[in-house]
Amino acid sequence: MMEESPFPEAPCTTEVSNEGYFSTEQGTARVRPVFERKIPAGDDRERLVCGTCGFIVYDNPRIIVGAVCTWEDRVLLARRAIEPRRGYWTVPAGFMELRETTEEGAAREVREETGARVRIVDLLALYNLTHISQVHLIYRAEMMDPHHAPGQESLETALVAWSDIPWDDLAYPTVSWALRDHAQRIGLSNFAPAGRPNGSP
Amino acid sequence: MMEESPFPEAPCTTEVSNEGYFSTEQGTARVRPVFERKIPAGDDRERLVCGTCGFIVYDNPRIIVGAVCTWEDRVLLARRAIEPRRGYWTVPAGFMELRETTEEGAAREVREETGARVRIVDLLALYNLTHISQVHLIYRAEMMDPHHAPGQESLETALVAWSDIPWDDLAYPTVSWALRDHAQRIGLSNFAPAGRPNGSP
Repeated sequence: MMEESPFPEAPCTTEVSNEGYFSTEQGTARVRPVFERKIPAGDDRERLVCGTCGFIVYDNPRIIVGAVCTWEDRVLLARRAIEPRRGYWTVPAGFMELRETTEEGAAREVREETGARVRIVDLLALYNLTHISQVHLIYRAEMMDPHHAPGQESLETALVAWSDIPWDDLAYPTVSWALRDHAQRIGLSNFAPAGRPNGSP
Repeated sequence: MMEESPFPEAPCTTEVSNEGYFSTEQGTARVRPVFERKIPAGDDRERLVCGTCGFIVYDNPRIIVGAVCTWEDRVLLARRAIEPRRGYWTVPAGFMELRETTEEGAAREVREETGARVRIVDLLALYNLTHISQVHLIYRAEMMDPHHAPGQESLETALVAWSDIPWDDLAYPTVSWALRDHAQRIGLSNFAPAGRPNGSP
């Protein structure tokens, strides 16, 4: 913002706290901010802006971290116990959390959903899903031992040979992309991460 | 969440709208949700949860997209016109926006901050900055022509030879990392993205 503030005598200051967004009116009472959707000065797209004090709420894409995990020539799959796509198979993956690295997030999701302990090897793929504003970072990982067991979000887990992958029962297209991208890179290292396949839906 | 909802007779439903978070009480009036910080059932960390209806607010890391842009053997730098680090030099980069790809976001930031039109080549680096919960995705890009001019967020822009990079006046450590990672990969292609240097602060 290069321009002078259009809120010179704002009676409130909007902040983020444990209680969500709130406004402090004349430095005392907490009130609900009066948000309107507008383009802030110096910006080029609409944001939620407090009409009184000018506080801007930014909404940005979210990161999904996950891994294609292997033990010998098998890959680790989990059958979802939660919606959406309950009952369908996936590679372990989920929302990245604050204060962790992408690698730590991927290993955490593996542990939570499959009970497996893994060593993250390298970045297999970066998939942009613009329709839901998600960036998927999928790693390759080696299991430290063949142990796996369903976590709270999984009905069952399995170490599956390539010929046994349940292609018709995968939860999402990204799961299929990740498995195929993995298969094409076995034995390779130091490669650019795969992207979303051309022409994919 | 595998457990039964602990809010069986919740009188409100919290939702996200243009006005921010709000609750609909008995399906009609809009009221402020009553958030408390607690660990939701089936989760393992604290979230903002509406104490009445159980709505959970997730806060996740944000993505910075940017690019090391080249014309012949020079790199494109911009001197920041805004805080933080006003007056210091950077490669163009900024927060990824909703509904764009990481490549589109990087090219947009370049255009906004330096006026340059670029072709994104490949992913140079992925830096995890856990202390501020940011993931930086820095691309390599080729300028389509040597034109550049400061945008609203830049005081000036420059195409700089390696020997003229103002190392002592760079805005952030990540700028230095990206420039060095770029220099080490000139002439290479199909490589794994660089990560945060070992032992970096």
